[in-house]
Amino acid sequence: MTVTPVRTDLYSQVQHFYAHQMQALDAGRFADYAATFTEDGSFQHSPGATPAVTRPGIVAELVEFHRRFENDPVQRRHWFNHIALEWQPDGTIRSTVYALVVTVRPGGKPEIAPSCVVHDVLEAGEEGILTRSRLVTHDQMS
Amino acid sequence: MTVTPVRTDLYSQVQHFYAHQMQALDAGRFADYAATFTEDGSFQHSPGATPAVTRPGIVAELVEFHRRFENDPVQRRHWFNHIALEWQPDGTIRSTVYALVVTVRPGGKPEIAPSCVVHDVLEAGEEGILTRSRLVTHDQMS
Amino acid sequence: MTVTPVRTDLYSQVQHFYAHQMQALDAGRFADYAATFTEDGSFQHSPGATPAVTRPGIVAELVEFHRRFENDPVQRRHWFNHIALEWQPDGTIRSTVYALVVTVRPGGKPEIAPSCVVHDVLEAGEEGILTRSRLVTHDQMS
Repeated sequence: MTVTPVRTDLYSQVQHFYAHQMQALDAGRFADYAATFTEDGSFQHSPGATPAVTRPGIVAELVEFHRRFENDPVQRRHWFNHIALEWQPDGTIRSTVYALVVTVRPGGKPEIAPSCVVHDVLEAGEEGILTRSRLVTHDQMS
Repeated sequence: MTVTPVRTDLYSQVQHFYAHQMQALDAGRFADYAATFTEDGSFQHSPGATPAVTRPGIVAELVEFHRRFENDPVQRRHWFNHIALEWQPDGTIRSTVYALVVTVRPGGKPEIAPSCVVHDVLEAGEEGILTRSRLVTHDQMS
Repeated sequence: MTVTPVRTDLYSQVQHFYAHQMQALDAGRFADYAATFTEDGSFQHSPGATPAVTRPGIVAELVEFHRRFENDPVQRRHWFNHIALEWQPDGTIRSTVYALVVTVRPGGKPEIAPSCVVHDVLEAGEEGILTRSRLVTHDQMS
């Protein structure tokens, strides 16, 4: 297997980008999460879903999705692992990442589900990393 | 969301620091764990606890805490994820990290609880990274 | 505890190497996985097992092991955490890594077991990182 040599500074940047991006999501800072996408960014949380596009569109999608937790004091945390990058001819970066969702309620134990794979296309520009598109596949659906 | 550009060498250093620090803790090498704190370091394993201070104080706290496992052949492993760094005006680094505790007993399956967030203040000096203070919050308590 | 200063570019390389290596394994690309070992590489998936040696030997071992999943539409994902590196006098790198195996079946929830520790010897050469030997220990057996 040939692993394309990674620009190691970029690898750390991507890891750090994901740390802030996902902590924003889990803290309910949806505008901050959406701002980690490009202006025309696309976010599809499962293969059957209609992708949310543009930052306002992504915020609207997240607000809608989180209605189900309105009276539920739940804390969700998205864990990532094994960030595999591949450079694309157009200068973007394909990023394939394992994800687990950890869910905790007051006094409860963590539930860990589902197991997913995040398929991102990233852009690395002067203002840092941005997500151009994100598709999340779910292992239990395959 | 503006993610402060990270010194990528420092990001790798912090990741590697945590790997050694937490493997020391999980192996019961409490003096090694305490030595990853500054001389006046502070370690508070939950918001209600009195912080243990100084390296000898941290060792004493760990010895006390692990009494409960004296006749229990348990292996605990602290997993970390999404290390988010923020530079502070005083030159220290605020580090916010997801944590899960994996617990295994002979012949058993891993239990994964609790889900926590580690709130560290780190110092990066000539001898590498040190933890100045650590507060651990627990998701099931919030 | 003295943490040997890490060449931070190498640390990122190792992380990225593991991401591609383990995504290859979990996708059933056994030849790709074996190609991440040196020509004379050794892979021992538990302390009692006979090590598989050489790339063809590793592929054969993986084919044999995965027979048990032949009629089982299972997706396994190996998660890694806390990669701790130590430089050896012979120029190789000892790498000690926490691992959890996530197993998902269609319509099911992830099972997370076993909890392991991966003990690798790595070589960093012109063609990137390669695994010279891997021994996996299992927490529930200790």
